[in-house]
Amino acid sequence: MTREQLFEQIKAKRSFLCVGLDTDFLKIPPCIHAQYSGDEAIFEFNRAIIDATSPYAVAYKPNLAFYEAYASSGIHALHETCKYISSRYPDIFLIADAKRGDIGNTSDLYAKAFLDINSMVFDAVTLAPYMGRDTVEPFLKYKDKWAVILALTSNPSADDFETLPLANGKQLWQQVLETAKGWGCEPHGQSAGSTNEDRVMFVVGATRAETLAEVRRIVPDHFLLVPGVGAQGGSLAEVAKHGMNSTCGLLVNSSRGIIYASDGPDFAVAAAAEARKLRDQMADLLDKYL
Amino acid sequence: MTREQLFEQIKAKRSFLCVGLDTDFLKIPPCIHAQYSGDEAIFEFNRAIIDATSPYAVAYKPNLAFYEAYASSGIHALHETCKYISSRYPDIFLIADAKRGDIGNTSDLYAKAFLDINSMVFDAVTLAPYMGRDTVEPFLKYKDKWAVILALTSNPSADDFETLPLANGKQLWQQVLETAKGWGCEPHGQSAGSTNEDRVMFVVGATRAETLAEVRRIVPDHFLLVPGVGAQGGSLAEVAKHGMNSTCGLLVNSSRGIIYASDGPDFAVAAAAEARKLRDQMADLLDKYL
Repeated sequence: MTREQLFEQIKAKRSFLCVGLDTDFLKIPPCIHAQYSGDEAIFEFNRAIIDATSPYAVAYKPNLAFYEAYASSGIHALHETCKYISSRYPDIFLIADAKRGDIGNTSDLYAKAFLDINSMVFDAVTLAPYMGRDTVEPFLKYKDKWAVILALTSNPSADDFETLPLANGKQLWQQVLETAKGWGCEPHGQSAGSTNEDRVMFVVGATRAETLAEVRRIVPDHFLLVPGVGAQGGSLAEVAKHGMNSTCGLLVNSSRGIIYASDGPDFAVAAAAEARKLRDQMADLLDKYL
Repeated sequence: MTREQLFEQIKAKRSFLCVGLDTDFLKIPPCIHAQYSGDEAIFEFNRAIIDATSPYAVAYKPNLAFYEAYASSGIHALHETCKYISSRYPDIFLIADAKRGDIGNTSDLYAKAFLDINSMVFDAVTLAPYMGRDTVEPFLKYKDKWAVILALTSNPSADDFETLPLANGKQLWQQVLETAKGWGCEPHGQSAGSTNEDRVMFVVGATRAETLAEVRRIVPDHFLLVPGVGAQGGSLAEVAKHGMNSTCGLLVNSSRGIIYASDGPDFAVAAAAEARKLRDQMADLLDKYL
């Protein structure tokens, strides 16, 4: 998906909501377990959540760990979920929250696993920057696909390394932004003509909304994937105030607050209500800042 | 597996060789493809390689990307491979080269996926340190299991971030070692009594053998996982000279040089010959330095 297509969808839905499909088998409501078992239960739960929330969401973000924990059965459910979204809701932006980070032919294979037309059809994959450019480049070779690079996260131990002061006066996460925004897309390949901003996003935690102004100083035009609204307690208004740019530039994720809003037979209705609440706030913020 | 058990095996086999199971479906020899298809071909290739090389290797390291690229079928082959190794060769140390790096309940689930007795039975998982301690702690809760943390890798873009000079005069990778060696194991849990050295290893690339002396200054007693001997061109003698400690402290990996030594019907014999060559060098180095 191109940046223009993503922005069009944001304007059409008045939303920059990403729903995190952190589907924990043990938290799937009893009414699903009563009808389905194994990977079918995971898929049917996802399908109900997606159908209910898709009017309010522009992106879905399955978290790979939740599927890998159920081995080949979980991976099968993930594939079915991706197929369902891309065929039924082709305008939705689909992010693999995988936080992969390897190099060379290994990184090529991760890119193939998530982006290749013959495997899963994600639009984007989250990546860890530790090993540098070699981790990210294979993902930039795929036409209209995105690398979503960890910059500043909101977990307590983000200060172990991400905020370390460097000799040049920057903190590590600032240097990650500075360096990664210079990584080129293929000059002659499938993605000829696209810029870094068309192919790279950054993860910035919402509990650090005040630092979003500094993020925007370094990467004014990039999209940011912002987790941490909802269960992790970030403020949507603060994120929009400091982080929104002229093409919105934000995808704000909520996972548990939406998908586990109820564990009764009304779980999908409850999920839709939570997603709609966020969408309504987002619509107001888009009116205010865009 | 405990550190003592690993060292016992190194002494018994006179080897610190780890064989990387980077099993590329397209490089599996025609004689395997003629008999097996899909995940069976991957598993049967691995089984032949393992049976042939196990006299010379103390560890195997499947690289997750190679299995994920074939979706649920690849994951099934990986499970079968793990089951085969742990039942047939229970003394072998089994590393998931997954380079995962997430936090909270996501990290818990990755640990469950790789270490839990009901899923895959790896002894260790490679992890990226970018998000800090939160990434690693869930893995330290499992009794006699290991976190293998990226420190200094040998890829060209390792200099993007890993070697950045910090304000405190260290480079980032040195700080990763300094910080991560202080991460504790559960004081009261399953792993009570084990130290950081009993549960944490570090990845240090072999093409930077001269820096191994500096690594040893910071972490004299830890095991190091050293990729890059073979296809990536590191020198085994240099690695041993600078990196070996009183319990060996090294697992040196070779992947393609062993598993793709031949693509003929003799592929397993050729793999054994390459593994044996490395084992013979390792036996000499253990005699020399230990």
